[in-house]
Amino acid sequence: MKRLPQALVIVEMAALEELTARALKNAGARSGMAAAAARVLVKTESLGVPSHGIARVPFYCSMLRAGRADGSAVPRPLRRHEAVYLLDNADALVFESCEMAVKEAIVRAEKYGVGVGAIANGGHAGALGVYLAPVAERGLAGIAMCNGPAAIPPWGGKRALYSTSPIAVCFPRAHAEPVAMDLSLTTVARGRVMLAAQKGESIPEGWALDREGRPTTDPHEVLTGGGTLFPIGGMKGSMLALMVEALCACLTGSSIGPEIDSYFSEQGTKPRSGHLFIVLSPEAFAGRDAFQDRLEKIVTLMLAENGVRLPGARRHAARATVLRDGVALPARLYEKLQELAQSFGHPHA
Amino acid sequence: MKRLPQALVIVEMAALEELTARALKNAGARSGMAAAAARVLVKTESLGVPSHGIARVPFYCSMLRAGRADGSAVPRPLRRHEAVYLLDNADALVFESCEMAVKEAIVRAEKYGVGVGAIANGGHAGALGVYLAPVAERGLAGIAMCNGPAAIPPWGGKRALYSTSPIAVCFPRAHAEPVAMDLSLTTVARGRVMLAAQKGESIPEGWALDREGRPTTDPHEVLTGGGTLFPIGGMKGSMLALMVEALCACLTGSSIGPEIDSYFSEQGTKPRSGHLFIVLSPEAFAGRDAFQDRLEKIVTLMLAENGVRLPGARRHAARATVLRDGVALPARLYEKLQELAQSFGHPHA
Repeated sequence: MKRLPQALVIVEMAALEELTARALKNAGARSGMAAAAARVLVKTESLGVPSHGIARVPFYCSMLRAGRADGSAVPRPLRRHEAVYLLDNADALVFESCEMAVKEAIVRAEKYGVGVGAIANGGHAGALGVYLAPVAERGLAGIAMCNGPAAIPPWGGKRALYSTSPIAVCFPRAHAEPVAMDLSLTTVARGRVMLAAQKGESIPEGWALDREGRPTTDPHEVLTGGGTLFPIGGMKGSMLALMVEALCACLTGSSIGPEIDSYFSEQGTKPRSGHLFIVLSPEAFAGRDAFQDRLEKIVTLMLAENGVRLPGARRHAARATVLRDGVALPARLYEKLQELAQSFGHPHA
Repeated sequence: MKRLPQALVIVEMAALEELTARALKNAGARSGMAAAAARVLVKTESLGVPSHGIARVPFYCSMLRAGRADGSAVPRPLRRHEAVYLLDNADALVFESCEMAVKEAIVRAEKYGVGVGAIANGGHAGALGVYLAPVAERGLAGIAMCNGPAAIPPWGGKRALYSTSPIAVCFPRAHAEPVAMDLSLTTVARGRVMLAAQKGESIPEGWALDREGRPTTDPHEVLTGGGTLFPIGGMKGSMLALMVEALCACLTGSSIGPEIDSYFSEQGTKPRSGHLFIVLSPEAFAGRDAFQDRLEKIVTLMLAENGVRLPGARRHAARATVLRDGVALPARLYEKLQELAQSFGHPHA
């Protein structure tokens, strides 16, 4: 590790993963849970998504300490039905369950052509797209979604009901990194509203609605005033959010948005959210060759235009840099992580 | 049939279906193809979606006459792989294939927990949501999507690449009509841009981009000037459109947007679009009771707010009226339909 002028530190991925796991274990996570979380979070960080990476470790530690996540819980299968696998996350940190659900969905897609790995009683999963890497590596297409705390209102309504509705997708390419997307159905992430509030700035119209369902430019209306985040496309985005909510919460028998306390507070009930991973095998459809031929045609047309970038390309480029140089972390975050890893007599050399 | 002052005529559903089938047969569709098309189009009309119902019959007839659809084609299975069924529509009108694909997806979902019915070499399918009714009737959840002529640009690009990206979803309810959604990923349908052009009106900013990728208020820029339709949420909608395009075209080995000629002209090549129906069985996940409990909770919270309507409710209400009173059609459209049904010596009594 060396200290940079911008108050960044460069850390080796393996060391960062170990440190992260130790921090989570100190907070009460059993070994496998901590290891999976560390693996996913460091990978997310390495893909250039710091908002869902190491910066969240203190939050996960607090979730464990406050009892919103059960550090000793062991996920167990609730139901195996041919192409469907439903896992009870049992209030654990959900990273390990997500990895397991994806693995089971892959096995099923390879056998049945399509496979679904679902999770009941989940929690904050970080950046969903990260879990789909093994799907693309096997030459399969994948869709991931989950629900969480209410953020988006039903169209015409004032109260938040659906989560931000994260959706991630990956499509494998024969000789290149997969086309990979990772988005939510809100116009902007809640984090950007928080940032505006911290800076004392207003937010552009179109980002949020106040508690009466009217457009607002005051970030506090959303964060503490009972307001909601505006869905992309208005009514259409709200309908897609209902789709995500129903697929994730209803199929798995999990909590719906208003039953899940905010992820911006460490206090609250266990999230018990629902997660869905759908994996499709090109082999079971028109075949891998046809799939690749059609996908490359799309990619070629995309890249023929100046200004178009392939979804996922930025993450793959970030990853290449990190694999070569290590992860650049804010020094303060790194110190916080060391502190979390050191408590209870686990000093970091 | 009686003539109303607003130049509407009221027609019995059965009579309308027969008339529609006869019109399509006159244009060259074999019996089963014409019957399926008539069934779907009359049903769509009865659900209060005239934009995708009987008004399109002259267009489908012209597609058949111009050779863009093959009236003698018989869809045949391309591949059956456990939970996946891929049908070659063989350039037929695609209604019959959609019904078959949904049926096969249902059978597979009931056996494997999840089932996919896919179609290669499809065409204009009308309102996708209509096909999902049998899915909900069996207590299953369904997702439908397809591609078509290019309408939406990749984000940062100028040329249309993805279709309007129709997505339909249904969720069954135990003692009520299903929650059902049917939308596309453009801010508005192309038909609304056409309407503005016909009236000589400009369109609001946010609906469309000109050929240089700049926002435009001139409807002609979109219709004939090489412009594109704006996706909901900008970049996010464009990414979701890429998802729909890749799932539908790549898995089925079908045409992509720019390879499909406009549906607003009768001239052009065979569409050969891709269609996907994914059906999920609540029974294979947390069970029907859990599914219904969670869904009713969402529905209750939605309806607790004034101004929120349940997606699908308007269609179900329209259907109830039509079942009681018959279909109300513009007199001119009805006359056109009679004319199409009468040619080649098939007079309508």
